Amino acid sequence: MAIRSDSRKYLINQNAITLKKEKLILISNDDGVDAKGLKTLYETASQFGKVVVVAPAEAMSGMSHAITIKTPLRVKKLQHTGSMEIYKCQGTPVDCIKLAINQLLNGQQPDLVLSGINHGSNASSSVVYSGTMAVAMEGCINQIPSVGFSLLSYDPDADFTASGKIVEKVIENIFATGLSEGICLNVNIPYVPYEEIKGVKICRQAKGLWKEEFVKRVDPHQGEYYWLTGYYLNLEENSEDTDEYALLHNYVSVVPVEIDHTAYPAFDEINTWKF
Amino acid sequence: MAIRSDSRKYLINQNAITLKKEKLILISNDDGVDAKGLKTLYETASQFGKVVVVAPAEAMSGMSHAITIKTPLRVKKLQHTGSMEIYKCQGTPVDCIKLAINQLLNGQQPDLVLSGINHGSNASSSVVYSGTMAVAMEGCINQIPSVGFSLLSYDPDADFTASGKIVEKVIENIFATGLSEGICLNVNIPYVPYEEIKGVKICRQAKGLWKEEFVKRVDPHQGEYYWLTGYYLNLEENSEDTDEYALLHNYVSVVPVEIDHTAYPAFDEINTWKF
Repeated sequence: MAIRSDSRKYLINQNAITLKKEKLILISNDDGVDAKGLKTLYETASQFGKVVVVAPAEAMSGMSHAITIKTPLRVKKLQHTGSMEIYKCQGTPVDCIKLAINQLLNGQQPDLVLSGINHGSNASSSVVYSGTMAVAMEGCINQIPSVGFSLLSYDPDADFTASGKIVEKVIENIFATGLSEGICLNVNIPYVPYEEIKGVKICRQAKGLWKEEFVKRVDPHQGEYYWLTGYYLNLEENSEDTDEYALLHNYVSVVPVEIDHTAYPAFDEINTWKF
Repeated sequence: MAIRSDSRKYLINQNAITLKKEKLILISNDDGVDAKGLKTLYETASQFGKVVVVAPAEAMSGMSHAITIKTPLRVKKLQHTGSMEIYKCQGTPVDCIKLAINQLLNGQQPDLVLSGINHGSNASSSVVYSGTMAVAMEGCINQIPSVGFSLLSYDPDADFTASGKIVEKVIENIFATGLSEGICLNVNIPYVPYEEIKGVKICRQAKGLWKEEFVKRVDPHQGEYYWLTGYYLNLEENSEDTDEYALLHNYVSVVPVEIDHTAYPAFDEINTWKF
């Protein structure tokens, strides 16, 4: 971790004019501001420039791209040094990004939006439920290069050492070559030591779905209730070009995700319809 | 409305065996079970078969694809005839669809999932924030033909007469030709009388974003808070093949939406990265 500490110190010692030239990296997640994965992400990112973290006060898994319209948002600054600001926000992951871009960053456009590192996979169709990926998509809608990172462990105390190294490589590549507009990245990392990661594969999103198994119970007042549970079902286990396949074989999966959800190949089909 | 009433009566008079052959249509929305747009949707759909409505108890705009993991869900049956069941659920729009498919429909797979009719546009990038479109996408993930409908009026008492006729046409087309797997439809309807609708256009999602303008206030206890507000910014006003352009010119826009968010054209770019 020597590089990180040195790097932070280096940044803090810069004067304001130099700092302006530094990269500005905005970070959020959906596991909440106290999550271990978030800490790995902002510590790693701090090697590359000024980091502003705006994360939900509480865990917000499964919040997808939800925004808070009917209630106000409150924000509290938890930490503020020259190179690192950390805020907690009582809203959704996407609220955090909107609030940062429109208020907390004082009009400065971030050079990069990062999300995670999520505790648990966001591969395959999980991308549509994921607050982690919603952060990246919100950054992308705002025309900022954006990446969501997820580790395949739900353990709150999971070991993020290998993930941190992957994050570093991804940031290096983005700052070296950029990322096309309208595209963000969904990076999932297998939960194995760094030495056992076989490599990085650019993949497509596997076809799969969550099979729900609601638990039905009766409360102490005789009211019935349901509680969501379930398991992921991969609908194409043998497709080698998918994220699920890559992860199963200890590769990091990188899926480029498009903000334009238009299904262009379907135009011909629907153009035959009669109105 | 004569056809609708006749149709419902007809269905109610069938015996159970005939009913099994009817189409089963599952409906939800994000404006809540009491919304006028929902009523138009289920009344129109009831011409085509048995309708089961499972809608949020309260308005849930901007909930996107959020799911409820940490709290239980409660459901109440509001209406039950041979051809129409209406439930309200204290969850998100996607919770409603999951609960219906996995519990309330007793294992029967719907032939069609419909959502809306939303009070307000879901064109362009609004598709990612929309609970209405999340319902359609959830149906699609479950391999059911699915459509989200939105009317370009936020008025709770808007006139849905023209929208009802559009819904009818779309359902007819889907039952006539089907809809390819992995694709659902985002149908937006201009708020003009039916005679003024110039036609239906198959479009791509316009490139645009919401520009947020958070209102910052101080509460009576000197606590600061932010409240989300904003306006939609179209980034390509003159692109004739977009949904925004079609709607502006009084066409109904139909955008086929893909569950696979993979940006295939970006593969080459990211494959040059060094890890």
